[in-house]
Amino acid sequence: MRNIGMTVAYEGNAYCGFQAQPEDPTVQGCIEMVLKQLTGDTISILASGRTDAGVHAQGQVFNFLTESQIPVERWMIAMNSRLPKDIVITEVWEAPLDFHARYSAKRKTYRYSIYSERVPDLFTRRTELFHPRPLKIDAMKEAMSHFEGEHDFTSFASPKSTKTSNIRTIYQSWLEHEPSYTGHPDRGRIHLFITGNGFLYNMVRIIAGTILQVGQGKRSPDQIPEIIQARDRHKAGPTAVPCGLMLWKVEYDGSERL
Amino acid sequence: MRNIGMTVAYEGNAYCGFQAQPEDPTVQGCIEMVLKQLTGDTISILASGRTDAGVHAQGQVFNFLTESQIPVERWMIAMNSRLPKDIVITEVWEAPLDFHARYSAKRKTYRYSIYSERVPDLFTRRTELFHPRPLKIDAMKEAMSHFEGEHDFTSFASPKSTKTSNIRTIYQSWLEHEPSYTGHPDRGRIHLFITGNGFLYNMVRIIAGTILQVGQGKRSPDQIPEIIQARDRHKAGPTAVPCGLMLWKVEYDGSERL
Repeated sequence: MRNIGMTVAYEGNAYCGFQAQPEDPTVQGCIEMVLKQLTGDTISILASGRTDAGVHAQGQVFNFLTESQIPVERWMIAMNSRLPKDIVITEVWEAPLDFHARYSAKRKTYRYSIYSERVPDLFTRRTELFHPRPLKIDAMKEAMSHFEGEHDFTSFASPKSTKTSNIRTIYQSWLEHEPSYTGHPDRGRIHLFITGNGFLYNMVRIIAGTILQVGQGKRSPDQIPEIIQARDRHKAGPTAVPCGLMLWKVEYDGSERL
Repeated sequence: MRNIGMTVAYEGNAYCGFQAQPEDPTVQGCIEMVLKQLTGDTISILASGRTDAGVHAQGQVFNFLTESQIPVERWMIAMNSRLPKDIVITEVWEAPLDFHARYSAKRKTYRYSIYSERVPDLFTRRTELFHPRPLKIDAMKEAMSHFEGEHDFTSFASPKSTKTSNIRTIYQSWLEHEPSYTGHPDRGRIHLFITGNGFLYNMVRIIAGTILQVGQGKRSPDQIPEIIQARDRHKAGPTAVPCGLMLWKVEYDGSERL
């Protein structure tokens, strides 16, 4: 028996999320269908976590057990030639048998992208939120820093979240700004990055929706600590649309490779 | 009567080219349909030139005559809210009555993009040629420089071209290289840019196909002058796929605006 680890990128627009569902197209469903074609076996993959409908991934990680003898350097081409064009395997490795893409994960990073210009950018529109009005970018940057540390993130979790604890550690939370081609200081492309030991259901999208309100001047950056402390979903902003969100990378401690 | 000028960006994948056709979806067809909705009149737009099926534009320009009283600052939002998501008006201006998007054009710039990595980039795949093997980028850069000047470009024109003269002036022809994330010197993203007073049918795609052969080591850069001199389509390389091509910008002499 072998344990194979893979990194996969996908554009989520066409899928009803990552996790397999009996009726709807999902990323997991496509991958498992291709694994069946390649190995002849029904294989269930284990991913680092789900992503919602419309959410993208640059570096989602999954693993699966197989008795297939396909050499590790052959998997990538074999899979990419069969997968739809919006799903691409970018890395394949031989993992120890106890590697589990979810339980072994140490850090996950998400990116949420906002494009603030008068007209949308056609060529990146599928992976960002279009915001036609200017945003207070310095205030958003300051607000992002308040998420760092160990906190109870109940205010930033969907009420549908079923985790036993809402305490998570955010290692880093920052904003990157690509300046506007117009020279306007409050326009351009904004990437919100957040790295933590785990995330609650909808947590990054609710953070993005709240940061957006800071950018719109509806809230000040120093309200973020109060919102966290309230442990009340009603105190935070709305859940931002899925298309701006991307699972950026999943990190392990090095023992994920043989 | 007013003459309105507009700049439009489009992602060409879903269209059978720019120019209106009775049966097939085209960019011009979409724009004229929206102009009819807005003005009630059947309007024919005049573009700086056609683009083929699958070719994109960052800055295509067109104009049209109308008696509509819609103020110039209202057109953009009115059109973008009605156009499909892969066509966006990015600029609107009041033009003198003698402005003609094609005849008044002084310089046009095209970009051809190539992505040379082991796996495609999901998020930019619609606007670039994926080339999984490394390319001799320095040789490509040298080859590009040989197109500058006034030349008879018969070798780089489709035999379907119907122009009376194949002589065109290329003002600038250069390569931009975004280095590979792998650090490999012969990988990464390559943009071929070419600015001229006009282009023959398929000219930029045939230039790109020939430059690609230089990158693959099938030709040397100093063969380019010989190929130009031969005035024989068979001496040049193949026509590169349309999806890598983008009409980058169209320039006028300043008299295009009132």
